[in-house]
Amino acid sequence: MRITFLGTGDAGGVPRYGCDCPACTRARRVAHFRRRPCTALVEAGDTRILLDAGLTDLTERFPPGSLTAIVLTHFHPDHVQGLFHLRWGIGPTIPAFCPPDTEGCADLYKNHGLLEFRRLAKFEAITIGELTLTPLPLIHSKPTFGYAIEDGLNHRFAYLTDTVGLPPRTEDFLINQRVVELAIDCTYPPGTQPHNHNDLTQALSIIDRIKPKRAYLTHVGHAMDAWLEENGACLPTEVSIARDDWAVQGMD
Amino acid sequence: MRITFLGTGDAGGVPRYGCDCPACTRARRVAHFRRRPCTALVEAGDTRILLDAGLTDLTERFPPGSLTAIVLTHFHPDHVQGLFHLRWGIGPTIPAFCPPDTEGCADLYKNHGLLEFRRLAKFEAITIGELTLTPLPLIHSKPTFGYAIEDGLNHRFAYLTDTVGLPPRTEDFLINQRVVELAIDCTYPPGTQPHNHNDLTQALSIIDRIKPKRAYLTHVGHAMDAWLEENGACLPTEVSIARDDWAVQGMD
Repeated sequence: MRITFLGTGDAGGVPRYGCDCPACTRARRVAHFRRRPCTALVEAGDTRILLDAGLTDLTERFPPGSLTAIVLTHFHPDHVQGLFHLRWGIGPTIPAFCPPDTEGCADLYKNHGLLEFRRLAKFEAITIGELTLTPLPLIHSKPTFGYAIEDGLNHRFAYLTDTVGLPPRTEDFLINQRVVELAIDCTYPPGTQPHNHNDLTQALSIIDRIKPKRAYLTHVGHAMDAWLEENGACLPTEVSIARDDWAVQGMD
Repeated sequence: MRITFLGTGDAGGVPRYGCDCPACTRARRVAHFRRRPCTALVEAGDTRILLDAGLTDLTERFPPGSLTAIVLTHFHPDHVQGLFHLRWGIGPTIPAFCPPDTEGCADLYKNHGLLEFRRLAKFEAITIGELTLTPLPLIHSKPTFGYAIEDGLNHRFAYLTDTVGLPPRTEDFLINQRVVELAIDCTYPPGTQPHNHNDLTQALSIIDRIKPKRAYLTHVGHAMDAWLEENGACLPTEVSIARDDWAVQGMD
């Protein structure tokens, strides 16, 4: 299994429009530090799954036929806005697996175009090509699923965003499954009264309880990036800060 | 008054994802023929008004403080999706004038960030800096306004998209006002059973009744572009096909 973080930012991204904080100033100067909407690509053999669709250049990145499926965590615009254009394409339908959110986002359900939305049920695993995904309820302001993803080679990766904390049953599932790698929402620096998203304290606490071999902090906001610039060296050794366009090979 | 067409495409754009028609193939080869989401910039003196916000790179194009206001025709995603990112910016509020649509689009009203939505009333003119805009009801699948725009120098420009035909009172207003320039929705080639948007026959019929000195066809779909490639030479001389990044000086 190969995981590529295509976007690792929060809804405002880094740099945030009009912001002159150290993290935004640095990101404006050096592209490496920019953060686009939170998105990952998971690949195994010929199977290519896009986790969330907030990048607005999906039609440029993924030629027709190149995605096996899109899997959505939830229907906030920064996670689905790339579909507004893609859906009007011509060609075979693209399955878009999603949580059972009756609203969706804007008119995506009504005018779905070449997307075929398929609602998932919590803890009911599905197989897409060479990968098996189990939808895990998260705690957010819209119905939201994280995903435990396995290939046939005992690689077990969990993608948990957007969330503030974890429901006990989701946490138990991940502990029992002995997840090897974990990507987790870490929008805010410690001590910021988190709202709908983890701060670093919560993210590290979750990592400490699930005990993956490696954890990646994602959905990172500009204030978290500014905090990391000062304090990043003190993170536990098994915890990495995800960056846009960073590919990691799944561990077993 | 200076008008710049920043985007002149329909919701699917040109090239459309996965399409190999002559217009899409040409647009993929030559950037000049691409069409982004329908948007125009109207400027007079220090006043800069963005008509619709479907471009997804608004934060790159317009540094903080560079727009006097955003004026929306309606809340379909291809006309507002650039706001999903921009709204999370830091700095002074940006007025976003709009039709009285109680729904808006996705969570834009709920999480408006630095946008200040101001609902307009039909035929009630407002002044923004050096420009006066009169909202004109159009015929579309969501509450939609076109705008008659005047500067202090007797330049009168009307921007009419998205629409299929025109309500009689809107048409009467434009005839009585003796509009000089007109940009009009022309999504489809003639004879395509238009749905929510004009085809060429309807667009030309509207132009013929309003009789501006110059008319620009915009919100052009790929099938219309393919038709124009074969038949474009037969358009009336006062009618031009708008193109992305094309600036025109208002005539008097």
